[in-house]
Amino acid sequence: MSAIDETHDPARISWVASANGHSDFPIQNLPFGIFAPKGGHRRAGVAIGNHILDLAEITELLPAAAASTLQGPALNAMMALPRADRVGLRQRLSELLSDEAHRGAVEPSLYDAATCTLYLPASIGDYSDFYAGIHHADNVGRQFRPDNPLLPNYKYVPIGYHGRASSVRPSGIEVRRPNGQRKPLHEDVPSFGPSRRLDYELELGIWIGRGNALGEAIPIGTAADHIAGFCLLNDWSARDIQAWEYQPLGPFLAKSFQTTISPWLITAEALAPFRIPQPARPAGDPAPLPYLFDEADQQAGALALDLEVTLSTAAMRANGEQPVSLSRGPASNLYWTAAQIVTHHASSGCNLQPGDLIGTGTISTPKPGGYGSLLEISQGGKAPITLPNGETRTFLEDGDEVTLRAIGRAEGSVSIGFGECRAVILPAS
Amino acid sequence: MSAIDETHDPARISWVASANGHSDFPIQNLPFGIFAPKGGHRRAGVAIGNHILDLAEITELLPAAAASTLQGPALNAMMALPRADRVGLRQRLSELLSDEAHRGAVEPSLYDAATCTLYLPASIGDYSDFYAGIHHADNVGRQFRPDNPLLPNYKYVPIGYHGRASSVRPSGIEVRRPNGQRKPLHEDVPSFGPSRRLDYELELGIWIGRGNALGEAIPIGTAADHIAGFCLLNDWSARDIQAWEYQPLGPFLAKSFQTTISPWLITAEALAPFRIPQPARPAGDPAPLPYLFDEADQQAGALALDLEVTLSTAAMRANGEQPVSLSRGPASNLYWTAAQIVTHHASSGCNLQPGDLIGTGTISTPKPGGYGSLLEISQGGKAPITLPNGETRTFLEDGDEVTLRAIGRAEGSVSIGFGECRAVILPAS
Repeated sequence: MSAIDETHDPARISWVASANGHSDFPIQNLPFGIFAPKGGHRRAGVAIGNHILDLAEITELLPAAAASTLQGPALNAMMALPRADRVGLRQRLSELLSDEAHRGAVEPSLYDAATCTLYLPASIGDYSDFYAGIHHADNVGRQFRPDNPLLPNYKYVPIGYHGRASSVRPSGIEVRRPNGQRKPLHEDVPSFGPSRRLDYELELGIWIGRGNALGEAIPIGTAADHIAGFCLLNDWSARDIQAWEYQPLGPFLAKSFQTTISPWLITAEALAPFRIPQPARPAGDPAPLPYLFDEADQQAGALALDLEVTLSTAAMRANGEQPVSLSRGPASNLYWTAAQIVTHHASSGCNLQPGDLIGTGTISTPKPGGYGSLLEISQGGKAPITLPNGETRTFLEDGDEVTLRAIGRAEGSVSIGFGECRAVILPAS
Repeated sequence: MSAIDETHDPARISWVASANGHSDFPIQNLPFGIFAPKGGHRRAGVAIGNHILDLAEITELLPAAAASTLQGPALNAMMALPRADRVGLRQRLSELLSDEAHRGAVEPSLYDAATCTLYLPASIGDYSDFYAGIHHADNVGRQFRPDNPLLPNYKYVPIGYHGRASSVRPSGIEVRRPNGQRKPLHEDVPSFGPSRRLDYELELGIWIGRGNALGEAIPIGTAADHIAGFCLLNDWSARDIQAWEYQPLGPFLAKSFQTTISPWLITAEALAPFRIPQPARPAGDPAPLPYLFDEADQQAGALALDLEVTLSTAAMRANGEQPVSLSRGPASNLYWTAAQIVTHHASSGCNLQPGDLIGTGTISTPKPGGYGSLLEISQGGKAPITLPNGETRTFLEDGDEVTLRAIGRAEGSVSIGFGECRAVILPAS
């Protein structure tokens, strides 16, 4: 586990004024990303308030081991650093951005974030997606099996599947509505065309840091050392395509047309103050099998993050109306910790690599108000919701813009945000 | 479709003597790979008889467009070449290796293949696996649903799922038996340990050449242009882990511990003489939906390849006994063509990239003799097979070595082979 150190000190402020007050990126956060200033090439940066610090420009001010990983257009090598080097880099950046003595050397390397383009933080070797949001699994399972919503393996196996790495895109890139085979229940044969039941899914993404060799497991006690950090992840889902294609090998084209993530790597170190105990399992649930159980992980394996999904329709934007909140809930509604997910993934000997991305699965509350998908909110399309401007929705329409947000909150700590995970739906081609 | 040209002329022979006669790699084949001579670095090569021609050493003899893609340790850029450039490269190599006039310039760049190490031919961005072997789907489905083995979507949707790219390895690399959760039917709760039902699956791999942009489909009429070539693929499968984990999101750790492929890219051009009509669908089957139907593809979308699986146990090798053949059958037992698989994969807008790998699914015959997995041969473990030395098998034991082979055969053409796809099972860690 990361210790809470002076980089989390709530009294520490930055000489970058916009970082102090209401920002996702106060000096206690210091997330890493890949950005390009207008007309410039891609490079590594750190978000601070409304600015981005160009790390490649200040490598001579950084610890040598970390500096050598910050020269290229992807953070895979930085993610792979031993934890001690990542911590050292964070401590140095916190110093550089808080101590006025460094302002003269550092300030010329700051860019106004509003003028920069953000890219994926890493070259993603493999993307996997889990199903650890138990209330989502329960809510969705209940639509098909009211008396028995969770399958028998759910409380033993952190259920996951392989996703598509090539179509992961950062926040802001539009999502084209997919075409595919759809077979409504009342039709005898499928037809091919645009999805009629396009949905979002609210998830966290886990960035893998140090990897494991093929054939070697990651013991649960050391799994945290393999996690570089987190992001928001929208696992866009075409429910009609999924319903028809998914048996027996699972979701495929219903998901692989695009996955949107927030572009900043919120480091495991920045999240240390927001670690809370994993919620107790309900009475009668089995204990995790020994390879998935670690007392320290149980004590601090969940994250105190407030999650929110907002929707803005084309009509709302045209009329200057604010986005509407579709759901709010805590990230602790996960049945498995990130460490358990990582350990399970590698338990067969499957090799994880720096920059691999793992989705947690949709995070929903047990009752309405914090459902992480329209499938749950509209009860499978049976219960349309009415928006403040009178529009209704069961699933997403062209022009809809969905934004995911996350804020870490803990008493005595400065809150940190994840930045946006946002995209607009384009019509099918 | 590739035309049959002088590079396929059965009268053409090479000045590399071992290429003429019984070789997987006559001058009509010319497969590409990545190899390293003893003590050397990785580089691009072409197999010819018992030798490998170092392409990086002879770039000045090759067409410029192709030569520039042959300098690095992966063939992704070469695979992405327009078909005309790939054809030009093949024609030139055929000339260089057949015409005695070039021998002096080329021969110094030949290496004895027995002294070289072979690597993956490409950096694999994404690996997907299909389920197009209808008799496999039927044989396996029958074990669970005797009266209704194929699910309703099977004859409409080329069923596929995402696999793990990081654990794809070339022939010869050992496979460690995976650990995982297993829950036999007679036990109430799962336990974690080595798979007891480790299996192989006989598949072809499809190498993607030119990709498609995110959001843009690949029309069926042009899908062949996106296929660089083929390989053999062993989709190792832990049946007990799979049975317990796979619902509802499909196979995951049961497959991702390793996938073995034959290391040579057998080009679409080399396979032109072995193209045959796609077998007619049984009476009563639906026609492919229009986006998956192309008359030219139906006329030449299958491959006349003889496939074989052999097994050598540790005891057999210790006693100097030859491997035993477990199955033989044709590659035409696929319900969907490679073009249909590629078009379907991209139909949602999912972007394929040069060097992506796609498995066809296990290729089995309808009746015993050509089953592509032990799950089928041993009837789910109920019917052990007895080997010539008296050993029995239901699933694979530690020390077993499985080899897949493929030979293209067509009247009036020189046969070509794929090279081996082979690996030994190591004990679980």
